[in-house]
Amino acid sequence: MNRGRKSSPNRGKTPACGAGTQALSHVNAEGRARMVDVSGKAVTSRLAEAFASVLMEAETLKKIKENLLAKGDVLGTAKIAGILAAKKTHELIPLCHPLKITEVDLSFSLEDAPPRVDIRSRVRAQDRTGVEMEALTAATVAALTVYDMCKAVDRAMRITDIVLTKKTGGKSGTYVRKEPRLKEE
Amino acid sequence: MNRGRKSSPNRGKTPACGAGTQALSHVNAEGRARMVDVSGKAVTSRLAEAFASVLMEAETLKKIKENLLAKGDVLGTAKIAGILAAKKTHELIPLCHPLKITEVDLSFSLEDAPPRVDIRSRVRAQDRTGVEMEALTAATVAALTVYDMCKAVDRAMRITDIVLTKKTGGKSGTYVRKEPRLKEE
Amino acid sequence: MNRGRKSSPNRGKTPACGAGTQALSHVNAEGRARMVDVSGKAVTSRLAEAFASVLMEAETLKKIKENLLAKGDVLGTAKIAGILAAKKTHELIPLCHPLKITEVDLSFSLEDAPPRVDIRSRVRAQDRTGVEMEALTAATVAALTVYDMCKAVDRAMRITDIVLTKKTGGKSGTYVRKEPRLKEE
Amino acid sequence: MNRGRKSSPNRGKTPACGAGTQALSHVNAEGRARMVDVSGKAVTSRLAEAFASVLMEAETLKKIKENLLAKGDVLGTAKIAGILAAKKTHELIPLCHPLKITEVDLSFSLEDAPPRVDIRSRVRAQDRTGVEMEALTAATVAALTVYDMCKAVDRAMRITDIVLTKKTGGKSGTYVRKEPRLKEE
Amino acid sequence: MNRGRKSSPNRGKTPACGAGTQALSHVNAEGRARMVDVSGKAVTSRLAEAFASVLMEAETLKKIKENLLAKGDVLGTAKIAGILAAKKTHELIPLCHPLKITEVDLSFSLEDAPPRVDIRSRVRAQDRTGVEMEALTAATVAALTVYDMCKAVDRAMRITDIVLTKKTGGKSGTYVRKEPRLKEE
Amino acid sequence: MNRGRKSSPNRGKTPACGAGTQALSHVNAEGRARMVDVSGKAVTSRLAEAFASVLMEAETLKKIKENLLAKGDVLGTAKIAGILAAKKTHELIPLCHPLKITEVDLSFSLEDAPPRVDIRSRVRAQDRTGVEMEALTAATVAALTVYDMCKAVDRAMRITDIVLTKKTGGKSGTYVRKEPRLKEE
Repeated sequence: MNRGRKSSPNRGKTPACGAGTQALSHVNAEGRARMVDVSGKAVTSRLAEAFASVLMEAETLKKIKENLLAKGDVLGTAKIAGILAAKKTHELIPLCHPLKITEVDLSFSLEDAPPRVDIRSRVRAQDRTGVEMEALTAATVAALTVYDMCKAVDRAMRITDIVLTKKTGGKSGTYVRKEPRLKEE
Repeated sequence: MNRGRKSSPNRGKTPACGAGTQALSHVNAEGRARMVDVSGKAVTSRLAEAFASVLMEAETLKKIKENLLAKGDVLGTAKIAGILAAKKTHELIPLCHPLKITEVDLSFSLEDAPPRVDIRSRVRAQDRTGVEMEALTAATVAALTVYDMCKAVDRAMRITDIVLTKKTGGKSGTYVRKEPRLKEE
Repeated sequence: MNRGRKSSPNRGKTPACGAGTQALSHVNAEGRARMVDVSGKAVTSRLAEAFASVLMEAETLKKIKENLLAKGDVLGTAKIAGILAAKKTHELIPLCHPLKITEVDLSFSLEDAPPRVDIRSRVRAQDRTGVEMEALTAATVAALTVYDMCKAVDRAMRITDIVLTKKTGGKSGTYVRKEPRLKEE
Repeated sequence: MNRGRKSSPNRGKTPACGAGTQALSHVNAEGRARMVDVSGKAVTSRLAEAFASVLMEAETLKKIKENLLAKGDVLGTAKIAGILAAKKTHELIPLCHPLKITEVDLSFSLEDAPPRVDIRSRVRAQDRTGVEMEALTAATVAALTVYDMCKAVDRAMRITDIVLTKKTGGKSGTYVRKEPRLKEE
Repeated sequence: MNRGRKSSPNRGKTPACGAGTQALSHVNAEGRARMVDVSGKAVTSRLAEAFASVLMEAETLKKIKENLLAKGDVLGTAKIAGILAAKKTHELIPLCHPLKITEVDLSFSLEDAPPRVDIRSRVRAQDRTGVEMEALTAATVAALTVYDMCKAVDRAMRITDIVLTKKTGGKSGTYVRKEPRLKEE
Repeated sequence: MNRGRKSSPNRGKTPACGAGTQALSHVNAEGRARMVDVSGKAVTSRLAEAFASVLMEAETLKKIKENLLAKGDVLGTAKIAGILAAKKTHELIPLCHPLKITEVDLSFSLEDAPPRVDIRSRVRAQDRTGVEMEALTAATVAALTVYDMCKAVDRAMRITDIVLTKKTGGKSGTYVRKEPRLKEE
């Protein structure tokens, strides 16, 4: 005889919320995590752009620049790492859907005040849900790779200001946000 | 001059079988494994549901319940593991196709007679082939995770009665099967 | 000023439990999941063996047998899948440690009463913690692969009786359990 | 104030090239790697076939043949490895897109003069870009697996003549190339 | 005749640098990326701790808190994601070594001024090189997961102040850094 | 009652072979694949070096050279792909053990007669078994990446002459083999 707690997977509805309150879409009525059903959504063209910054010593930035002028491998390696990470997003972020990514690109900008590497990513897909997490993951893993390649000379680097800067496609439409402005400290 | 054994990939046809006998679809005319060609199949809405049960000591179930009431991490961890595993199905099961999964959900039910955790999974996709293996893999890996998190107190747990309980979509249509009934032992 | 909830990672101690009660080792004092610290444990020789069974129609078993006699690919594919899965255990089961696996082997036995494939796995490692989950994962993924390769002819197969049958090495010593006896139904 | 090098991801255009010169499509205007944007391409039926050869001692080939006649596991294992590798192509080759693979098949031919295993792969997809890399990766990883399974008896094996033999679908149309002819040495 | 550029892998020496200047250890004498050889280093006990913060609207924090009190799945899911990511570090960061991780733990602190989730990670290993990247990756992927689970209600969240806070073990000894202090904006 | 075929995993012994004949170590007495037990082997310092060559049109080589002089991303991307692939070897080659890799390096040489890219890899580990497959996999995946990045201009490239050129450590001692000499065709 069954007298235990029971919950069928059919009950994974988004909870009714107070007026004017939007619910957390990835948590079901019982407060447990779920992967949102996107079966009913239309396949549309999706784009997302993200930003991340790696703050460092001026001396570290100088080393990256010298290497960049010569063979560019710190940024080249970070770029490949970011592209590969975008494709792994659904393995890293538990509730992300596997998506049909059609483009990943990253660019790097070396800034002096304060000394840092700014990273910008862009991801496109033709799919039922957006690529925000793919763009954020690409920028973030590129930043971690910059940290890894320079950490022997500068362990105190700070990865900061990871934000979604743009998103187009899907029912919620276009979102644009300015990049955080970093002031000299 | 070639006198060796030769087999072109074009010969991967399903073997002719005796009257009334359906062939094993994943094994080709030479009896060797192959990934079935689904290029010609239509993209339709696919759903599959699966069931698995983890039998345990009453004392172990009690510990899970107490934890569940407090923070719920045994089942929460098992749920995330199941969701991630559904997305890895084509890496684990050699002849599975990578699919466009649009939803994964799992639910857990704590039962007293006999003491056990029942696991139900549901997977949806918009694709050319079904998601049975994704649903079975989700339920199974969730069950293994329950085992892992409780094994220090109960090494004799038994994972059992893993079955496909429902399948819709595709040419073969709907399949429904009752969950196995577990009797107190 | 910080007035929020705070918990340092240093507080991940196993909770004090009532007399005679062993705690769930993978859940910390706050009831949250954690990967147990095994730094202090000795590297010793570890072995684990597991068992799983796939129940099926007599006709399905006959097809596997005929294939086995010819080229053996259902079981051959399941074996490779099980070996690869053992190596992926720490990616599938969230709180498992990555281990130095030194051997994985699986064997298959075709039984008539009731008709089924019995799967036995064995995993060895030289490490700080046991390989129970690796052995269970190997047997389970091999069972799922058998299901996958035969499901076109027998969707009602049941994967059952997944148990740890042996474990040696480590502080807790040797554990042996008899395989579940399956009776003709 | 920003005086650093700056490059927006929007500048990832293929460089203008000298008359009659086609550019390397995976390298952008600054010479840096990028994943080509295929959002605008039509989903069509794609096929690619590849070839690889593993040259070995006559004695090694004999061992594979004897095993093949018995249970066939060297080639059976290589086949599963090749199928799984095709599905991993976008994780291995940094600038490849994740694709909707609908079929992977490999075949093996044992040749005596010179003694070798010839490997032929075929991959199909319904997608926006071709499956050449998937077919090449499948054949190559199958060849590496043959090497692995025989290396204890023949460390000097040579994997050679990995080529794309056929490609259909997409704007560039059909490509066919003869397999390299291996002469007895 | 060979007149091309040639570089043997034996030439991967760290470049001679100006007096007082430490070289970027992951870039070889030609400025190209390489995985540093750690064969000669001793296996010692390694620990690293990292910090990350997710800034958000007060309303978003309130939703996480309510969920936390009920079932806690936002943070529970982020924790599992962080633990799994630590184990994937060497797949994400190209020049990281695969390490023998013996512990991963994460904790979360909900702060009101400014509203945010602070994430602290700790990783231990018995190995030849440090686990800084594993700790940073765990904290970062946990932060991305928090973003993912809340993004439907707050797309403007900012992941910030990712730093290494502690490191012990290895030739370079102990490193400690204070967590960045976030002021109300 | 069991009357089926039975094989315990304990029977995975290497078959007795005719005098002077060494057995295929990865195939057990029944001719089935197995992962060799290396528990009893000593941990020693292991090194392996491999070679691969990508033959191409002179025009394609010219494009790589021009890119190399500018930013070097074709070879830079191939190098990162090779390093990451070495770490994935045990996931790609079914019967390989996961190893403690301590170094991976690759170098590239652009040759004119015949026009080609020569790839040399080196892998080190402190482990119970050799890193031959890791070195071969690194060189091979680097070669596939060169193909991928140039295939839009030269689909007929040929990856060839993949060989193990050196191996030290372990009971079988040192093995050295000359690189294949490519003649202008």
